Amino acid sequence: MTAEIQAWLPELLRALRPNQVTQSPSVLDTHSHDESYHTPHRPDAVVFPESTLDVVRIMEVSAKYGVPVVPFGVGSALEGHVVPVKGGITIDTMRMNKILDIRPDDFLVKVEPGVTRVQLNDALRKYGLFFPVDPGANASLGGMAATNASGTTTVRYGAMRDNVRSLTVVLADGSVIQTASLAAKSSSGYNLTGLFVGSEGTLGVFTEVWLKLVGIPEYTVAGRAIFGSVADAVKASTAMVGSGLSLSRVELVSDVYIETFNRIEGTDFAVKPTLFLEFGGTRGSVESSIAMASEIAEDEGCVGWTAVDDPADRARLWTVRHEAAHTFMKQFPGYGHMATDVCVPLSELPDAVHHAMELLREHGVHGGIIGHVGDGNFHLSLAVRRDNEDDMTRASAVNSELVKHAISVGGTCTGEHGVGLGKRKYQALEHGKALDVMRAIKAALDPDDRLNPGKLVDA
Amino acid sequence: MTAEIQAWLPELLRALRPNQVTQSPSVLDTHSHDESYHTPHRPDAVVFPESTLDVVRIMEVSAKYGVPVVPFGVGSALEGHVVPVKGGITIDTMRMNKILDIRPDDFLVKVEPGVTRVQLNDALRKYGLFFPVDPGANASLGGMAATNASGTTTVRYGAMRDNVRSLTVVLADGSVIQTASLAAKSSSGYNLTGLFVGSEGTLGVFTEVWLKLVGIPEYTVAGRAIFGSVADAVKASTAMVGSGLSLSRVELVSDVYIETFNRIEGTDFAVKPTLFLEFGGTRGSVESSIAMASEIAEDEGCVGWTAVDDPADRARLWTVRHEAAHTFMKQFPGYGHMATDVCVPLSELPDAVHHAMELLREHGVHGGIIGHVGDGNFHLSLAVRRDNEDDMTRASAVNSELVKHAISVGGTCTGEHGVGLGKRKYQALEHGKALDVMRAIKAALDPDDRLNPGKLVDA
Repeated sequence: MTAEIQAWLPELLRALRPNQVTQSPSVLDTHSHDESYHTPHRPDAVVFPESTLDVVRIMEVSAKYGVPVVPFGVGSALEGHVVPVKGGITIDTMRMNKILDIRPDDFLVKVEPGVTRVQLNDALRKYGLFFPVDPGANASLGGMAATNASGTTTVRYGAMRDNVRSLTVVLADGSVIQTASLAAKSSSGYNLTGLFVGSEGTLGVFTEVWLKLVGIPEYTVAGRAIFGSVADAVKASTAMVGSGLSLSRVELVSDVYIETFNRIEGTDFAVKPTLFLEFGGTRGSVESSIAMASEIAEDEGCVGWTAVDDPADRARLWTVRHEAAHTFMKQFPGYGHMATDVCVPLSELPDAVHHAMELLREHGVHGGIIGHVGDGNFHLSLAVRRDNEDDMTRASAVNSELVKHAISVGGTCTGEHGVGLGKRKYQALEHGKALDVMRAIKAALDPDDRLNPGKLVDA
Repeated sequence: MTAEIQAWLPELLRALRPNQVTQSPSVLDTHSHDESYHTPHRPDAVVFPESTLDVVRIMEVSAKYGVPVVPFGVGSALEGHVVPVKGGITIDTMRMNKILDIRPDDFLVKVEPGVTRVQLNDALRKYGLFFPVDPGANASLGGMAATNASGTTTVRYGAMRDNVRSLTVVLADGSVIQTASLAAKSSSGYNLTGLFVGSEGTLGVFTEVWLKLVGIPEYTVAGRAIFGSVADAVKASTAMVGSGLSLSRVELVSDVYIETFNRIEGTDFAVKPTLFLEFGGTRGSVESSIAMASEIAEDEGCVGWTAVDDPADRARLWTVRHEAAHTFMKQFPGYGHMATDVCVPLSELPDAVHHAMELLREHGVHGGIIGHVGDGNFHLSLAVRRDNEDDMTRASAVNSELVKHAISVGGTCTGEHGVGLGKRKYQALEHGKALDVMRAIKAALDPDDRLNPGKLVDA
């Protein structure tokens, strides 16, 4: 233990109860990494606050001794967001896991940041409501807010930023703010909620999150549309989005995944680019949406169309999509997964996907494409041996070329995974002088650079 | 002309063409006020930039001589936003009125800030697309972005903040930034777009605005539902919003407006609280939505229901709503209009509306209620003689009580009109310590306080 740590640790122990602070090596290890390929780094201590006041006390110690803090949810981040690259205190929100206030008449719920997505939706079911953002992982809602997470339902319901009404945030100096009122809309003051959502722990620590809720649709149908080419599938998806259908998901799965799935799972799905669709709403709206969607698909050269409404059939239909990356990786035992995450304007998507497939071939990297094509966001799942320098070099080259192409056509280096450590090097290219504005905001709100230092704007 | 102005005016004239700068008294007068009751104040000069570069040159003069600048669209603001309370330069964007780039496949359009809402929708019609935010007035899109404007369609499509993809902004020092890429979603960097939208000219001057577009619905139906009480009408509205219907507008008009309309226009509409509705989508979704909406209305005690799809009939049905404030004011020749603008959580709306009606009685002020009830936002139209101190005192008391009530139940002092001069005094009450964060951001981006000084966070 360094002299520095010897100074602040006793004060942290006094500020909290003994079982809220640990330096156990295994706990430090758990908090040294997320699910990404980035190099782990241990914090000096991990704390488990149980209230906003606990977080205030932690931030006061941080302020007094200049100790870095890193908020931590379930550790499912994909770009090294929670790696405490400068050590210090990791604030694990796992004990802040209460659903504090369900207000069905306001379509709002207040949760602590450690509540997970599945936990929340289980509690909401009896009200006929749900929280629609679905990044796949059963992430914590605080973490999802911190990275502006999104996913398959974003084409209909938006990303986290669209679905957080207000945040309670503990700032660098330990003061506590509410970022907004509970009104459905407001033109009062600057939009702090939108600024803190996606700030990745670099501006403050979230201790309460008010989320918007929506009604569970009366009727839901899942569909699958098979195309001769990725370009046709993307054109169909764009036309469906433009037609204002009751579309709640539209996902592209490239043929390489389907081929793998067939081989490993013994299925015989057509090995072609496939759109996985979901429609939700009143029965009438869903039925007319499906009719229109199948017409659009046919116009764009769809060679196979299925639609099912039974819940079990729907789940089965979506399996290939849900298991795509997982099944793909089964082919490569001992390999790790590197996920790319660009998002481009819709009109650029066919070219961007084509370019991505060329990159895989060119650099000899194993990978496939999954796309949230309604939003122009797609991922390559790259299979890499993390300790193999050549693998990492080639995969990083693919990622880098992909990002540069996306930015050159008006897109972004990250559609939903966030910046963390992995996308810092592209911030200047993507944002230009706007990065200086972001840095000015960071400097104004965290002048000592204690809040998740080394991330996001620290490029 | 003061010595101060004598210093910067020649430089401004050199930076622009002569016909871009004026001190004509009538032009200064036009730019001394908006549509509100706030005390006018003249700028020292009005400039008419024609490009981003012109605005850069203006900001460079502003920076060199410390001259305040106030951006100005069409002057339809309702809280004194464009009143140059400290003089200086008003930047009128009327010549920046070009639609620069329509991208139907991306559902995006790039406009200069002086383009108006109606101008844009006229140009978009042939693509089957429209820009959905509708504040009533034919405002400039730059002004709408600056105040985070919204209106009758917000229940379906959101406010300006939800519909601006990216902004080109000239900052206080004359540097130019792009706030975001054109990707439909991004987790890259801080959300500058959302921060600048609603910043009311206090953080930078917008010179280009990328807006999101949506498809014109295949089928549209207008409806009217009459209720025995405001509480019943609001309950029905909330239930409709929660059911995920294809609802594109849901507006409450209180009986006082309907009574006035009948009296002045010779109509015989039922003098009761009335919901004006619009449904849009595929024919199937609209038809099933109407069936469900009328059932919900009936459950909540609806005493009269009409639905029409012919465009002329729809326009006629909506007349009472569109003309409500205007017709109401006809009763009070010589009186001006003061609009209140609170927004509360939906569950608080019946109480808030009841409380508002009590306030009108208690303070003896002429007024009626119009509500964007799907969002919890409602306006009182107060008839006041602006030069009558007693009128102004009583109307201001109503406004102030209304705001305090809204904030006390988790609402906001302004749902869509913005802060400007009129809502500054409530910023501390609404935002608490978050106001310090807003001020820190303002100080970081405009350290000399030259961008629309005396507004918003200057409370």
